[in-house]
Amino acid sequence: MYPDNSLVRDISRMQQSNYGREGFSHITVTGALAHGTKEVEVWLQTFGPGQRTPIHRHSCEEVFIVLKGKGTLLLGSSSLKYPGQPQEVPVFQNTTFSIPVNDPHQVWNSNEHEDLQVLVIISRPPVKIFIYDDWSMPHTAAKLKFPYFWDEDCLPAPKDEL
Amino acid sequence: MYPDNSLVRDISRMQQSNYGREGFSHITVTGALAHGTKEVEVWLQTFGPGQRTPIHRHSCEEVFIVLKGKGTLLLGSSSLKYPGQPQEVPVFQNTTFSIPVNDPHQVWNSNEHEDLQVLVIISRPPVKIFIYDDWSMPHTAAKLKFPYFWDEDCLPAPKDEL
Repeated sequence: MYPDNSLVRDISRMQQSNYGREGFSHITVTGALAHGTKEVEVWLQTFGPGQRTPIHRHSCEEVFIVLKGKGTLLLGSSSLKYPGQPQEVPVFQNTTFSIPVNDPHQVWNSNEHEDLQVLVIISRPPVKIFIYDDWSMPHTAAKLKFPYFWDEDCLPAPKDEL
Repeated sequence: MYPDNSLVRDISRMQQSNYGREGFSHITVTGALAHGTKEVEVWLQTFGPGQRTPIHRHSCEEVFIVLKGKGTLLLGSSSLKYPGQPQEVPVFQNTTFSIPVNDPHQVWNSNEHEDLQVLVIISRPPVKIFIYDDWSMPHTAAKLKFPYFWDEDCLPAPKDEL
């Protein structure tokens, strides 16, 4: 993927990919690595029925806007040694929610019939994501995935050292 | 306006106001003063035919996503002593653009028939806006409007000193 730093960009012509995740689609609408923003980043993501993000946390703010569909926000806590039993909160078209910094969370298209489409805004890009296997994994055991899938292909290829 | 810090909020039930501007509507989807975000803020704004933002600048990043309609982005420069003749760039549904930090700009619904609806994301809220009378006003003469209209009613009322 080559960066497109045009002043005005057409989202409907942007490259989307599932980055190896079944029933998932991601577009980097505005990105730190792709477009040079330093303080905010915007993604457009679609989750097929039943699909979920990993359980994860990050030390940046995140705001979701649900453009289409219905789903469930699962939100753990950073106040124990592990996320704990998450709150399960229904989300639906035209709702918005923010993830508190460092709180482990998961967005789940819990609807069997429709796609869930969300606009996602993060601060302090590029995102540094720590992934949990389950809600009982200690925070210290969560695994850093950096760069994240959609940022990997924005980084310059390593030089040929031959 | 009272802050609504519910975890999930319904945008279609949020208060909208024109803050005294004809043909304009603003909703603070996620706000620093209204909802406690510290690093990002999201607005939903609608401009009637012919309506414009003021010519203004701010020292935060700003990303626009055009949800409906067509318009024109006018973008000056912070590199001279005044904004100078702005670039005029067409914007339309499903496009996105970012305003470089401190560059004076104006969003104009240059279409005569339709509303222009945009989602606006800023960093480092609440926004500190410097307003220009025209594109030839020196940067140093632009006037700070703080708090901005939609943040004014989120601040606590002054105490009755009697």
